[in-house]
Amino acid sequence: MNPEYYNTFHAYGEAVMYRWAGANRASKYGAVGVIVRSVTLSYDDFPHTGSMADYDSLPEIPACAVSTVGAKKLSEAIKTNPDLKVIYKASCKKLPDAPSHNVIAEIKGSMYPDEIITVGGHLDAWETGDGAHDDGTGVVQSMEVIRLLKALNIKPKRTIRCVAFMNEENGGKGGEKYAAECKAKNEKVIAALESDGGGATPQGFSFQGDTVKAENIMKWKNLLLPWGLYDWSYGHGGSDIDHLKDQGTMMIGLIPDSQRYFDYHHAASDTFDKVNRRELELGAAGMAALVYLLSEYGVK
Amino acid sequence: MNPEYYNTFHAYGEAVMYRWAGANRASKYGAVGVIVRSVTLSYDDFPHTGSMADYDSLPEIPACAVSTVGAKKLSEAIKTNPDLKVIYKASCKKLPDAPSHNVIAEIKGSMYPDEIITVGGHLDAWETGDGAHDDGTGVVQSMEVIRLLKALNIKPKRTIRCVAFMNEENGGKGGEKYAAECKAKNEKVIAALESDGGGATPQGFSFQGDTVKAENIMKWKNLLLPWGLYDWSYGHGGSDIDHLKDQGTMMIGLIPDSQRYFDYHHAASDTFDKVNRRELELGAAGMAALVYLLSEYGVK
Repeated sequence: MNPEYYNTFHAYGEAVMYRWAGANRASKYGAVGVIVRSVTLSYDDFPHTGSMADYDSLPEIPACAVSTVGAKKLSEAIKTNPDLKVIYKASCKKLPDAPSHNVIAEIKGSMYPDEIITVGGHLDAWETGDGAHDDGTGVVQSMEVIRLLKALNIKPKRTIRCVAFMNEENGGKGGEKYAAECKAKNEKVIAALESDGGGATPQGFSFQGDTVKAENIMKWKNLLLPWGLYDWSYGHGGSDIDHLKDQGTMMIGLIPDSQRYFDYHHAASDTFDKVNRRELELGAAGMAALVYLLSEYGVK
Repeated sequence: MNPEYYNTFHAYGEAVMYRWAGANRASKYGAVGVIVRSVTLSYDDFPHTGSMADYDSLPEIPACAVSTVGAKKLSEAIKTNPDLKVIYKASCKKLPDAPSHNVIAEIKGSMYPDEIITVGGHLDAWETGDGAHDDGTGVVQSMEVIRLLKALNIKPKRTIRCVAFMNEENGGKGGEKYAAECKAKNEKVIAALESDGGGATPQGFSFQGDTVKAENIMKWKNLLLPWGLYDWSYGHGGSDIDHLKDQGTMMIGLIPDSQRYFDYHHAASDTFDKVNRRELELGAAGMAALVYLLSEYGVK
């Protein structure tokens, strides 16, 4: 429902290709290094980083993001002096893969234990900050769904499984492995809900999957509307749960208010003081309510 | 539409009587001074203050708010030592009234200049902070409505008048005087829109006045829904515009996301770094859109 100039993910989606593909493209044309302007809506002093395309067979050249303030200074300096020389020092390097793990907890369903509802966020994060909104909040909210149901002494009819995914930012191997394990065990994940858009006030859910089933779930909208969850629309579920799409899973993404998200995204400024407790809890409560309804009524 | 545990103004509305009437009541029972726990949802070190009832003929006793952190410490200290003595020093005093002013700007209507749409916030604020969310943001948004219409080269059919009200916090004399002036000049203020709930992401408008007219305005909801303005409901318009209610004015309040508002309300922490530019601009844009529709179609 959100038009593209309202939801900041649209702007990010169109701009991120310069970070993603910039170094690859520059290498192709013989560049010795790449400096990209941070992909953020914030005018600040923090470099906002993120994943990049492989160099394929091209020479691997150093690449970095500079802050928007820094990018402006650099642009102005180049205009004044086209022969400007930049001293460029980078100490980062790509290390070999190492083992890491998804973290999983579940409440077994009392009537239909074989029907599983997955709820999750991802454990890994970019940068030297806390990775608070990306995606500490999503992990905490997913754990909170389980805690809330237990605190309310609810015995869900279907199995609810909380998954803290690993490696979302740098390959998505956690989501991939989880989907593969579900398939290998012939598990039936009827729905998966991901929170990976920050911990701000929730506005609704985006649905990806069978439209008849989605429409049936969207009928619950009026139950949650009074808590501000007004936007039930089709869209992306989440990158970790996306690997379940071949298994007929209804993939659902929490839609939080996106206005502040990219101010902190992939930067050292994404720290826990940027998270408002009430906003975070509202998102968790909305997720718990939807998961509860899914566990009671299934996906039909 | 918002249930009481979602919109933080409900909690404030129920709790504020302890700050408002506490000193009066304590004086009646012979107290020598009053310390109230700050009326805020935030657990912080800032005293959150605000207006209080007159002492009437009762002795005027000193009264202060302590932070929620301070109130907890004090409560615990009293529990440990019921004979606890508090040293209480207050330097504030009530000064005589002095002249101050509303600040007004308007665009004359091209077709119905005698039909006026007022849009405003209030200039005054509590405390040593900036009064950013209460109510700098409302004043800035109201000015922005005028600026946006001019920037878009829109000549509104009806008169649009931006009013920065004075003295909302401590008597409401600005709003009172404005309504009296309108009445004295026989002006027809068909609608008044106030932003006095902070500068966070807008969620809708609350309507106070003739219900047939209100329902007609609410028909425009779908036009603004894609920008998150989903909550068009009956409620309070605003304390500055409230004085217009005897003049048949449709009173409308912007409803921003209220989750963070009382974290900073009436405290030194209500500074401009707490305002997010995109959220502020979205509110101003929503207000401008509604004011434009009112100026085109009037109130019927």
